[in-house]
Amino acid sequence: MASATLNVRPSTDETNILALIEEHHKAHHNKDAAAIAAPFTRDAAIYNLAPPLAHHGVDLTEKQAWLDTWDGPIDLESRDFNLTVSGDYAFGHGYIQMTGSPKAAGRQISFWMRSTICLHREGSSWKIIHEHTSVPFYMDGTLRPAFDLKP
Amino acid sequence: MASATLNVRPSTDETNILALIEEHHKAHHNKDAAAIAAPFTRDAAIYNLAPPLAHHGVDLTEKQAWLDTWDGPIDLESRDFNLTVSGDYAFGHGYIQMTGSPKAAGRQISFWMRSTICLHREGSSWKIIHEHTSVPFYMDGTLRPAFDLKP
Repeated sequence: MASATLNVRPSTDETNILALIEEHHKAHHNKDAAAIAAPFTRDAAIYNLAPPLAHHGVDLTEKQAWLDTWDGPIDLESRDFNLTVSGDYAFGHGYIQMTGSPKAAGRQISFWMRSTICLHREGSSWKIIHEHTSVPFYMDGTLRPAFDLKP
Repeated sequence: MASATLNVRPSTDETNILALIEEHHKAHHNKDAAAIAAPFTRDAAIYNLAPPLAHHGVDLTEKQAWLDTWDGPIDLESRDFNLTVSGDYAFGHGYIQMTGSPKAAGRQISFWMRSTICLHREGSSWKIIHEHTSVPFYMDGTLRPAFDLKP
C-alpha cells in the first residue's frame, strides 16, 4: 500500500495514475470525446455535475454533444489531489478547476469542483471504474451552486 | 480482494462496513452528532452537499447545529451500494435517499443523493477517510439542484 499527493515522490503506480489524469485533462483541452472515454471501463459508475444520478460508462455521442456546447478548449487543473493505491485498486480525491467558455454564457467561466475517482488495475494499465464530480450548493434558500468557492 | 453489493452474500469486511453504514444512518435518525462523527478519521476529507468544498473531519458543534435545523428524525436509506475491499482499504458508492422535515421548509422532503466513501482498516475496525455526497444540478439555465431524480 502507498499513499501520495502530487507533492510527494510517487511510486510507478501513482505515476501511471497521475499521468492518466493528465491525459484526461488534455483530452478535455483537445475536446476529444474518444480520449476522454478511453480511461473508463465500459460500465464505470459516473456521477457528473449534471443529471442523471449516474452514467454507466461514457457515451461518446453524448460527450461530443456536451463538448460542442463550449467555445474553444475546456481546461482542467487538479489541486491537492490525494491518491491511495492498495493492490489492484486505487482511489483519489481532490479539487479540479474547470475553465472555459460555454456558448450559452458567451463568456469565460472558471470554478472549482470536488472530484473522487476509483480505479482498477487491468493488465499493465489502470482503468477508472467510478468517478464522482460535484459542486456544493448554498442551502440559504437560493439553492444556487457554489461556483465561487476556492480550495 | 472482494467486490459485493448489498444483494450478494458479503465477506466479514463487507459485513462490517455495511454495518458501519447502517449505524451511520441510525445516528442520523437519532440525530446523534457524536455517533455520526464516530466512523470518520479526525482529518477525513468530507465533501458535503453544502459548502465549503471540503470539511476535514466532523465538527461536532457544526453537525449538531445542522441536525437542529430539522424537525424530527432524518432518515437515510441506501440503494445499489457497491462495495470493494482491497487489503486495508475499501471504497463504495451508491445512492442514498434522505427523508425528513427541514424547519425552514415546514414540510417533509425526500430526495436521492449520490454517495462515495473510502475507508481504511484501523486495527479491527474500519474508518471513513473520505466521503463525497452530492446532488447533480440542471444545466438548463435554472441551475437548480436535481432533487427529483430517482435511481
